[in-house]
Amino acid sequence: MGKGGKGTDAIGAGEGEEENMAAWLVAKNTLKIMPFKLPPLGPHDVRVRMKAVGICGSDVHYLREMRIAHFVVKEPMVIGHECAGVIEEVGTGVTHLAVGDRVALEPGISCWRCRHCKGGRYNLCDDMKFFATPPVHGSLAQQVVHPADLCFKLPDGVSLEEGAMCEPLSVGVHACRRAGVGPETAVLVMGAGPIGLVSLLAAKAFGAPRVVVVDVDPHRLSVASSLGADATVKVSTVAADVAAEVDRIKAAMGGAGDIDVSLDCAGFEKTVATALEATRPGGRVCLVGLGHNEMTVPLTSAAIREVDVVGIFRYKDTWPLCIEFLRSGKVDVKPLITHRFGFSQQDVEEAFEVSARGRDAIKVMFNL
Amino acid sequence: MGKGGKGTDAIGAGEGEEENMAAWLVAKNTLKIMPFKLPPLGPHDVRVRMKAVGICGSDVHYLREMRIAHFVVKEPMVIGHECAGVIEEVGTGVTHLAVGDRVALEPGISCWRCRHCKGGRYNLCDDMKFFATPPVHGSLAQQVVHPADLCFKLPDGVSLEEGAMCEPLSVGVHACRRAGVGPETAVLVMGAGPIGLVSLLAAKAFGAPRVVVVDVDPHRLSVASSLGADATVKVSTVAADVAAEVDRIKAAMGGAGDIDVSLDCAGFEKTVATALEATRPGGRVCLVGLGHNEMTVPLTSAAIREVDVVGIFRYKDTWPLCIEFLRSGKVDVKPLITHRFGFSQQDVEEAFEVSARGRDAIKVMFNL
Amino acid sequence: MGKGGKGTDAIGAGEGEEENMAAWLVAKNTLKIMPFKLPPLGPHDVRVRMKAVGICGSDVHYLREMRIAHFVVKEPMVIGHECAGVIEEVGTGVTHLAVGDRVALEPGISCWRCRHCKGGRYNLCDDMKFFATPPVHGSLAQQVVHPADLCFKLPDGVSLEEGAMCEPLSVGVHACRRAGVGPETAVLVMGAGPIGLVSLLAAKAFGAPRVVVVDVDPHRLSVASSLGADATVKVSTVAADVAAEVDRIKAAMGGAGDIDVSLDCAGFEKTVATALEATRPGGRVCLVGLGHNEMTVPLTSAAIREVDVVGIFRYKDTWPLCIEFLRSGKVDVKPLITHRFGFSQQDVEEAFEVSARGRDAIKVMFNL
Amino acid sequence: MGKGGKGTDAIGAGEGEEENMAAWLVAKNTLKIMPFKLPPLGPHDVRVRMKAVGICGSDVHYLREMRIAHFVVKEPMVIGHECAGVIEEVGTGVTHLAVGDRVALEPGISCWRCRHCKGGRYNLCDDMKFFATPPVHGSLAQQVVHPADLCFKLPDGVSLEEGAMCEPLSVGVHACRRAGVGPETAVLVMGAGPIGLVSLLAAKAFGAPRVVVVDVDPHRLSVASSLGADATVKVSTVAADVAAEVDRIKAAMGGAGDIDVSLDCAGFEKTVATALEATRPGGRVCLVGLGHNEMTVPLTSAAIREVDVVGIFRYKDTWPLCIEFLRSGKVDVKPLITHRFGFSQQDVEEAFEVSARGRDAIKVMFNL
Repeated sequence: MGKGGKGTDAIGAGEGEEENMAAWLVAKNTLKIMPFKLPPLGPHDVRVRMKAVGICGSDVHYLREMRIAHFVVKEPMVIGHECAGVIEEVGTGVTHLAVGDRVALEPGISCWRCRHCKGGRYNLCDDMKFFATPPVHGSLAQQVVHPADLCFKLPDGVSLEEGAMCEPLSVGVHACRRAGVGPETAVLVMGAGPIGLVSLLAAKAFGAPRVVVVDVDPHRLSVASSLGADATVKVSTVAADVAAEVDRIKAAMGGAGDIDVSLDCAGFEKTVATALEATRPGGRVCLVGLGHNEMTVPLTSAAIREVDVVGIFRYKDTWPLCIEFLRSGKVDVKPLITHRFGFSQQDVEEAFEVSARGRDAIKVMFNL
Repeated sequence: MGKGGKGTDAIGAGEGEEENMAAWLVAKNTLKIMPFKLPPLGPHDVRVRMKAVGICGSDVHYLREMRIAHFVVKEPMVIGHECAGVIEEVGTGVTHLAVGDRVALEPGISCWRCRHCKGGRYNLCDDMKFFATPPVHGSLAQQVVHPADLCFKLPDGVSLEEGAMCEPLSVGVHACRRAGVGPETAVLVMGAGPIGLVSLLAAKAFGAPRVVVVDVDPHRLSVASSLGADATVKVSTVAADVAAEVDRIKAAMGGAGDIDVSLDCAGFEKTVATALEATRPGGRVCLVGLGHNEMTVPLTSAAIREVDVVGIFRYKDTWPLCIEFLRSGKVDVKPLITHRFGFSQQDVEEAFEVSARGRDAIKVMFNL
Repeated sequence: MGKGGKGTDAIGAGEGEEENMAAWLVAKNTLKIMPFKLPPLGPHDVRVRMKAVGICGSDVHYLREMRIAHFVVKEPMVIGHECAGVIEEVGTGVTHLAVGDRVALEPGISCWRCRHCKGGRYNLCDDMKFFATPPVHGSLAQQVVHPADLCFKLPDGVSLEEGAMCEPLSVGVHACRRAGVGPETAVLVMGAGPIGLVSLLAAKAFGAPRVVVVDVDPHRLSVASSLGADATVKVSTVAADVAAEVDRIKAAMGGAGDIDVSLDCAGFEKTVATALEATRPGGRVCLVGLGHNEMTVPLTSAAIREVDVVGIFRYKDTWPLCIEFLRSGKVDVKPLITHRFGFSQQDVEEAFEVSARGRDAIKVMFNL
Repeated sequence: MGKGGKGTDAIGAGEGEEENMAAWLVAKNTLKIMPFKLPPLGPHDVRVRMKAVGICGSDVHYLREMRIAHFVVKEPMVIGHECAGVIEEVGTGVTHLAVGDRVALEPGISCWRCRHCKGGRYNLCDDMKFFATPPVHGSLAQQVVHPADLCFKLPDGVSLEEGAMCEPLSVGVHACRRAGVGPETAVLVMGAGPIGLVSLLAAKAFGAPRVVVVDVDPHRLSVASSLGADATVKVSTVAADVAAEVDRIKAAMGGAGDIDVSLDCAGFEKTVATALEATRPGGRVCLVGLGHNEMTVPLTSAAIREVDVVGIFRYKDTWPLCIEFLRSGKVDVKPLITHRFGFSQQDVEEAFEVSARGRDAIKVMFNL
């Protein structure tokens, strides 16, 4: 959101303007396409005609529960935050973008006044305004107004859908950066859901020589294999199996079986325990997919081997790298887009149902 | 141990040599002073006449249990690893030390062939030979043979007892390095036992502008205050009190209440939970005092704020800095030495009893 | 400057307002006290009544030359950027400051849209608006309007003059951060002028166990000693003396003579050469005081020993640490303030003359 | 050298042993194949039958001058240090290698007692014993004895010649590590000689999205293109052309023209100046190919933009990564091997002549 757009007075178009339709979360399990009044265009803002918007697990969660943690949807809110579109208008101070440019949008606007923003970790800003995190409206709309510096031009050969995929890919990229993945890092990915898959893609793009992916579901593992996993290991949900599964995972890694980095993309006690036990002394575990707050895990066992445990909160500064990965072909996100919908009321309802069902649906995309 | 000294053939003096007496752990709760045969002096070794040896919690633990984790005392073993003494003989290749030099001894000999040794994290070496970690003999002996590069000359004004204290102080120093403590780091220390106190001393010496120490015991907290804690907070052992206690800890920190680094020196679920919850987004928790392997803690809450969790295993490269801290007066370890003993059979028995009782005893020291 | 204040239309007070007087650089060697019209107060700005403003070498340079490098004074410009004052008015969005608060001002406003700002190195921002760097007005004025997040509250016990000294101290702090100075770093400071002295103070505050200061001038060296230099070395300006002087510097450092970090605060070929040759393999040289662009120096000799060479451009995120150093007494900047002036036309002229003469004048301060 | 092998008593075979022939540097421009007596095999050593040995520029330099810097060849010395072979005998303590294993050899044996070795920067060890750096013998011999931990097993599919190429490739790898090359780093390589080419290969393998190579020689540039340079720029040797050439280099880089890292692989004042001026603020210049000690370069210009200047001395911990790069095909060194020779007296003489002539010869390899 440029500067405004909060609250119910955003519903409805301005006088004489084309009506800008958006998908509003109005109540539990109820999305409605209604007009969405754009805020005025500031000097450093652009107005973007949305073309591709993906559905994220958090969108589905808000739809089901009207909340995530302490973020509560109290008033109708436009949903959606994985998006790309075409510039239709630029503010007077914008020099690096022009009408007609195809752009991917980074969803969060930070304050630039706090210690986190000034210190280069703006994703930790307390005052972040983030698409579709209440009370801030999202981007599943025909048009949005957004700061120009959060809109990244897509090169020829990178589609708008791929542009929208920069958002989930950013999670994998930020995880790999935090975990220090590179050409010397053997990587274990726990979980082959959407987050696990983008983490796999990111790890390969960061040069990881070998990535082993673990899941309970053979179908998901076969997707991981097709996306470049060097090996996959099917595991159970039985906690007592951890030690034996760690041995199988190390064998799948090959060589001395050293795992330098584990990315837990599932968030279960068992997956975190496996990650902690499998990682070599001096390695790193990154908690990417988060589960229950309290966890019973072998943390001491990790600590005494100096296995660091780091988490991630969203991402920062990831769009240019994601776009470069897409441009160069180091990452191909197209196989992740399993379903496409238009933008009618019926489309929106069906798309969220498909996304919520999961399994065969990895990423559900709106083409507006 | 220079090159040998393992196993029971080390019991007894060589022919015609002065008998070298040492404190042997021979069975549960049984220590015996018996002759200890020194290994031959290698070209890069020195022979040290021990003068000051401290008792560590791990020594007491071995005495009580004959094991720590997977390290089991299967044959009689000389105990002790916090030590300093005077050089009596130097190997032919030793140039930086001379007979008569007063030295503090770093207890662990690593392999220098593995990835950890080569990569600068030799404390993680799988093949480490460490004083009094079975089957390697310790240093509570009249004389030991040790690699010269692990013997650090004490400057005038630093006593042999202070030299022996470099070992426990190294734990605090390594924790502060791993946690990145410096002049911009507000530090929380959970636990005011011996490890908490050396962590407090190290944090102040690294320049921490404010250190708050937390414990359940008012006496320990008063010791922490006398050693330089900027504030102390008395807490309960009741898990449900964490949230309220975090508020009190932040208030004690002052300013905005931001805690950049927490050093958990207690190893209980509650202390770890407090450390995780109290640390600011982007901060770091270091697990210094380790408890049960499995822990039920709010790890997700930390991960989502990008609070990193790191552990320590012993230390590396700490003696020169510890000695500099002692020389300059930035650290004063003398108040930690609460009890002193000679080296008779009775002394050894009493000293371990006093150390095991804890509380009023912080550090028990042998003067040989 | 909040948002405006550029150019000559800033001369003169607004209607009905108190006249705000400022020191304008109007031509070479000509400063005039004239009215300075304040820009409107934005929601995140504050209006500050200036109380203490120091003269920097760059201010004198602008006065003499009307330019520094490619920054040219084309229109009359208010001078000054080392400053502190009292809040008189706060914008509607300001919550952490109140009227009456005593604050030190960080002089540069960055864009928060470029890669440098987002990446945590905002001092490299191409679009920085910095007090008294043309065409932006400075702060030697009775009042200025400035972003609230660049105004840092001074605690009781830290004077406004000390607050103004945060600016030069920031140079030393940024140098120490870039060079990695800490409790394990033996530091060489080349040059005992104002920049050398703040670097010395900063290095000691970062915990450097030993700082040796080198200069050609015995008086400056005696000042360095009185400020805490552990040793000083008087050198010549003769290039051929470098090798012998390096030996004397290492001897003055004591121990093995290892110098971990050298801070060159003079900017001459000879001082840089000395820093490069004196620093131990794997150490770091920081170029703090900059001289001619082209330099003939033994760069290969440094490279082959993996001595890194880093420079600094201003500073970032330094005010909170500077204020903490002043509050705690780890740094005492008061001895650096050698001359004080009021704010009449005559005062301003005399003050700049005293500052330009150098030597006995370290820091010249206006009390407005 | 395992433990011995220094000096002239190494000439000649032991009694009853097969004669081990080696290429001895006996005088300026004079190499002679003569017997080379192997030192005894220590418990952690292996004896290797050499199969592939490359000629390095430093070998040629020793042949021409009998010295490099302060390393002077005072007694006949076996030459050569880029090598691979087959294990023929293993010491009693060697567990990870077996007779028949094909291995690449890391040439330097460090002391493991100094601060550099303990701190993870063993390449800076003062007491390093390095193949063919006087007075230590090299590896252009039928057999050598070497520490097992410096012999790295080659996987199937990586040839012995490729194994020998790990040594020059290590220079590029170490440079990329020191410069922080990764998937977000646009890289400039100054110079397309052997060092420039391995730096190019390493930069691509570390994931650099774009590498521009600069040289004066169109043939070398065409080799760089064929090895994967994204663009090449032909420049002059005229110092005055730097500014214009920097513009052309930035244009060749594309996008905003930002160069994050420059690797100077030529060592001339002009190439270093170009690297310093071309690199973006906050970037890094690595001096890989070293020239004259004194250099006249725009160091201040780099410092004020916080462009760090780092050098390299050999490498550390690079063999496993080089082998992984070769195994995976991320690096193909085979095109660099332009000439092959046997191991007769005539072969050795001709091979060094071809190597010294340069240009069309990139890497000259002996097949023993």
